[in-house]
Amino acid sequence: MPKKAKAKVAPNRNKARPKSRPRAQHSVGKIAALPSQPQYIPWHRIPLEDLNPLLQRQFIVGQEIMIARMLLKKGCVVPEHSHHNEQLTYVLDGALKIWIGGQEFVVHAGEVLCIPANLPHRAEAIEDTVDLDVFTPPRADWINKTDQYLRGEK
Amino acid sequence: MPKKAKAKVAPNRNKARPKSRPRAQHSVGKIAALPSQPQYIPWHRIPLEDLNPLLQRQFIVGQEIMIARMLLKKGCVVPEHSHHNEQLTYVLDGALKIWIGGQEFVVHAGEVLCIPANLPHRAEAIEDTVDLDVFTPPRADWINKTDQYLRGEK
Repeated sequence: MPKKAKAKVAPNRNKARPKSRPRAQHSVGKIAALPSQPQYIPWHRIPLEDLNPLLQRQFIVGQEIMIARMLLKKGCVVPEHSHHNEQLTYVLDGALKIWIGGQEFVVHAGEVLCIPANLPHRAEAIEDTVDLDVFTPPRADWINKTDQYLRGEK
Repeated sequence: MPKKAKAKVAPNRNKARPKSRPRAQHSVGKIAALPSQPQYIPWHRIPLEDLNPLLQRQFIVGQEIMIARMLLKKGCVVPEHSHHNEQLTYVLDGALKIWIGGQEFVVHAGEVLCIPANLPHRAEAIEDTVDLDVFTPPRADWINKTDQYLRGEK
């Protein structure tokens, strides 16, 4: 879990933000707009999406960047898949085993794996894990919920 | 600081990685190649770059993504600047005050600010802070060390 804000966020803590400013860019199930305004988004305001009993997800979509917090329980398997989106995976807590390009990596907390576009990969959480996945461009299949490979029950 | 790996990384912990695989993509002072192979990079293997007495930096460059860990001491000021690179700032510890587009945001640990391309912004660390900055495309001025706006002494 990310370090929690020290106090609950008051709606007007950032007083200069117009109340009407749209926030839909990080909503799941909507294609991202291309925001030309800054977007201030505490992670705790984004609902956790339950993909399967071992996997939860939140994400934020900017213009060409998506950043996701993935919460994986030990034993969670992400089946082999590939995508045209470049990916950087930064493990914040726990550890992931990742198979890619004929190699096997164990990525612990404080470590990053850069996954080039179009390179098939699969992963397994060998501990309860929180990782940060960064993509460009944003994952349309995640936004549109057509990411069935993540939604199977284990 | 990121959570440290639980044990010091042995050079051969990920044995499947060919020893000859280039690692230069995250070196400072070099333009990123476009790696077609995965890159496994523990943050602790990347030297901290001292930009000024209040600011240190590490970064990793992929194909179109750059991810940077910024260590700011309380009072560190990042002068107003803009860039064509989209930026997401995720504060891991501490707090940043950021002025952008006529607005002022206080971004605490666990919170994200999306900074669209070409929007001038400045920042001040109101606590000792660690933040993660994600860019696309990578910041050529950081890679080439032509980022004088960060290198002034305070």
